[in-house]
Order: sequence, then C-alpha cells, then structure tokens
Amino acid sequence: MIISEIGFIGAGLMGAPMAANLLRAGFRVTVHTRTRARAQPLLDAGAAWADTPAACAASAGVVITIVSDTPDVQQVLFGPSGAAGGAQPNTIFIDMSTISASATRAMAQELLELGMAMLDAPVSGGVQGAVDGTLSIMVGGDAAVLERARPVLEAMGRTIVHCGPNGQGQMTKLCNQVAVAVHMIAAAEAIVLGTKAGLDPAALIKAIGGGAAGSWAINVLGPRMAEHDFAPGFMVKLLQKDLRLVMQAGSELSAPLPGAALAHQLYAALEAGDRGDEGTQALISVYEALAGIAGTES
Amino acid sequence: MIISEIGFIGAGLMGAPMAANLLRAGFRVTVHTRTRARAQPLLDAGAAWADTPAACAASAGVVITIVSDTPDVQQVLFGPSGAAGGAQPNTIFIDMSTISASATRAMAQELLELGMAMLDAPVSGGVQGAVDGTLSIMVGGDAAVLERARPVLEAMGRTIVHCGPNGQGQMTKLCNQVAVAVHMIAAAEAIVLGTKAGLDPAALIKAIGGGAAGSWAINVLGPRMAEHDFAPGFMVKLLQKDLRLVMQAGSELSAPLPGAALAHQLYAALEAGDRGDEGTQALISVYEALAGIAGTES
Repeated sequence: MIISEIGFIGAGLMGAPMAANLLRAGFRVTVHTRTRARAQPLLDAGAAWADTPAACAASAGVVITIVSDTPDVQQVLFGPSGAAGGAQPNTIFIDMSTISASATRAMAQELLELGMAMLDAPVSGGVQGAVDGTLSIMVGGDAAVLERARPVLEAMGRTIVHCGPNGQGQMTKLCNQVAVAVHMIAAAEAIVLGTKAGLDPAALIKAIGGGAAGSWAINVLGPRMAEHDFAPGFMVKLLQKDLRLVMQAGSELSAPLPGAALAHQLYAALEAGDRGDEGTQALISVYEALAGIAGTES
Repeated sequence: MIISEIGFIGAGLMGAPMAANLLRAGFRVTVHTRTRARAQPLLDAGAAWADTPAACAASAGVVITIVSDTPDVQQVLFGPSGAAGGAQPNTIFIDMSTISASATRAMAQELLELGMAMLDAPVSGGVQGAVDGTLSIMVGGDAAVLERARPVLEAMGRTIVHCGPNGQGQMTKLCNQVAVAVHMIAAAEAIVLGTKAGLDPAALIKAIGGGAAGSWAINVLGPRMAEHDFAPGFMVKLLQKDLRLVMQAGSELSAPLPGAALAHQLYAALEAGDRGDEGTQALISVYEALAGIAGTES
C-alpha cells in the first residue's frame, strides 16, 4: 500500500510546520486540533479539516499524533471519537510526541489487537528543525512498519534512527533529554562562575567551547544565556514535562539519575517564578539568583 | 629581548611532550624535575639538566612550570633553591599547571616586586594535544608580557587566548573544568539509563550525539564508557584536584556550584575504590553500581 493520505493530530509549535512539510512533499493531509484556529494556516495551505480524531483517521494510511503529554495521546487515540475507533485496519499510527515509554508499549499492544500498527517517533531539533524538515526522529516499533512509513518521516526529518521495538524511540528521546538538561547545568554553572570571577562570558564561551568542555548547549545556548535572551527555542515547561518522564523511567528501571534530578529541581525554580514559557537557557537566572547577582528575569 | 633560553620545570605526562615541542621549535631548554630519570628522554633530545629550580632559571628568559598543584608551584618558585631566587631580572615565569587563581595572583605580585613577570597559562587538550602541539592555552597576565612570550606558547599550543589579568587564565580553566565534569554526569547518566532500558549504548550515542544533546564528552568519551575502556586520557585524580580548586573558587566568589559539587562527590566514589589513575570516563562504573549493574571495574 502506498501511503498518500495522512491524518495529522496536533498543530502546535512543532506539529504545524511538520504538517506543512508533509503538504509540501505532496501528501494529502487531514488535520485535527482542539482549537481549529491553530490549524487555519495548514487549511489555507491545502489541508482538509476533521472535527474529531476519528474523522481525521477515517481515510488515512498513516495517523500522526504530536500533542503535549501521555494522557493527550491516550485521549486522541482511545477516548470518545478517538482515532483508533475511526481508522481502517492496517493503519499505521506514528506518535511523535514525547511521552511515557511504558504507556507507549501499552498503546502499541492495544492497536496491534485492533489490527493496526504503531511507531513511537519522538523528535529532536526544535522548532527550527521542524520548519526546515531536518529533525532527528528516534523510532521505536517494527522495522518493516518503519520501512513502510519512512517516506512520511523523511518529509519531516533528516536523521531517522530505528532504536528498537515499541517504546525504544521514547527511551532514546528520554536519554537525549537527560543529556540536554544536564548540559544546561554545565553551561549555566561555568558561565556564572566566570561572571562572578570577572571574566567576559562571551569570551569565556569562545575560549572553552571548542575543546573538551564543548557542547551544543554551551555553544548555541551559552551566548543567549550571556545576553539574557530568554526567547524560547525549547520551553522550560516542556523540558520539565520531559524530565518528569525521565525521572519516572529512571524509577521504573532502577536507574538513579542524580544529575537529571538536580536539573529538574533547578528548573522548578523557574516554574515557581512563572517562567515556564521561557527558553531553557533561562536557567542562568536561577544560578544568578543563587550567586546573588541581581534581577535577570526577562 | 629575543627569548631563546627556556627553563622548564616539570616533566610529567603533559610537561615532557610540551618541552619536546620547544626543543623541536629550536629553543634551548634546561630541564629540572624532582626525578631526573623522567627527564632523560628530553636530555637525550638535547635539553640541558639543572639540579635545582634556581639553576634551571639562571640563564633563562622564560621559566615554565607545569607541576601538580598550588603548593608545588609555590615550592619551585619560592622554596629553597627556588626559581625566583635564581632568575635574572625581567625573566617571564609562565605557570602552565592548573592551580588556585588567588594563589596565582599572590605569586604574580611577589614576582612583580622582584622585577619579574608572570603569566598563568593552564592548558586543555590532554596528552594528545601536548604531543601534537595543539593545546588550548588560557592566559592570564599583562598583554604585553603575553606578546613577548607568544612564540614560546605557540610552540606548544594552537589556540592562545588572553583571558584577562593574572589569575584569569586559571579562572577560565576552572570554568572549563566545571563544564568538563558536569558533561561526564550527562554522558554517564544518559548511557546507563539507556542500557537499563535495553538500548544499545553505541547506537544511542550515535542517535543523540549529533544534536542538542551533543558534547565532546558524549561523542569522544561516551564510546569508551560503553566499551568499559578506562585507560586515562585525563585521570580521575587530576580532575578531582581541579574540582577542589573549582569548589574553592566557587566558595571564595559566592557562586554556588551544585552540578560541579555532584560530580566531585560521584568521582570521590572512584577514588574510594582506588581508581584515581583511571580515565574520567570511568564515572560510568559509579552509575552502573548505583543502578545495580554488576562489576565493571577495569
């Protein structure tokens, strides 16, 4: 079966440009979101509208979900007028949200019993990667199903890695987020120590970012930390959601994660200050407050 | 004054290849070490021997020290038969050890009062960088003194960054080490979480190392963690020495460093297991022990 009809559920900061790339690649896309207004640019670009997840899935070969959290995916798949109830047999569900790996395995099993397949396919690369179609996509599920769905994923991402059976795409994404979060500690701590010592933060980043202290976090987000540019590439509240999943997975797997736990707690200080919508580089503010550097809230 | 005569104190894993590069660049080098046998390859390559730091400095335009820790530098400069007592006026002292920034400022002041100049010039890039002459050198001190000494530094390193007045080279190095240490937490935690989840560590590193979770630590040391290759590029005991300096600087500057403190404590577990001579990637063993993964000591 050639897949040309796609149901797309979720048109947020990531989903909207990803669906737009599917349209550009020639797929027929039917969109459903909770708030129709958010889908309007996609409708203007040629997508069809569906009032429910079930209607969105009705004529689709692939149904993509990219929503906020585990309960949202469960709701749009198996809730009232859910996509699983509206879909044809053999439909491939691709969940590109970052959600629980164990809940993913349960949903994949449930779909299998309905004669359908599921891939978990969370992404990294941020809004810019979604717009450019250069996302990294971490896929869990059956390899043969991935091969059928690959042309769809290739319209949205550049690096498509098969990580293992269902749930392992999500696990890979959680490992990714452990590193992302702990790197933010490294960057903020190095920059604030340097600032307190009288070093120029921009020069410091340049001096250390090219060697053994180098990371994407220091080299890309470090300069924004130094300039107090807290516009979101990736929002604090979404990293916190991911870190809740990380801590849950660590607990289920008996893998103590003191670094990720520390990041989770330090980011909680930003949420306490109602700064969940800022970019993750705002962590520098927490360190500046700890170090007695006055007011850097955005 | 053209600098052609160099006194070189310390011929350890880093110092020996650095002095060899000075010889190759055509400088006349006089060496002093606590243990003469360690200097033998340099003497074979054309270096002269001095029995004391004072004798090592006697006819030198530049005296380089690269020894273990703050008291060692104080001893070879100002102890009995110390280099400061044996040197000519206008001698430039370049300390390339990683030591206390505040002690560095005090020593620079003391040398200034003797009519001499000092640069703090700690390095990053490891033994391989020392051998290849590609070290990054972080320099604190007077800019004009740095310009006079630059040809000497260029024989040993590729990136020479002026970080500010005396002590700021050391401060930059300490910020570098904060990031280095915290990145090791990120790498070990992500890899052990993935391993417990049944992911292949090598594939995981490949899947996440190219994007927002990327770091030198994950991409270069991550594979050694995955293979339990604990041969030292940079020894645990030396990182711990640096982290003591980091925590001291953080305390002096009122900059709380919870991430670096966590790294320092986790590495203490390796020292407790008498594994200080292993490479810093051995941190994976601490996480494997925490996660109940059996025996990975080297």
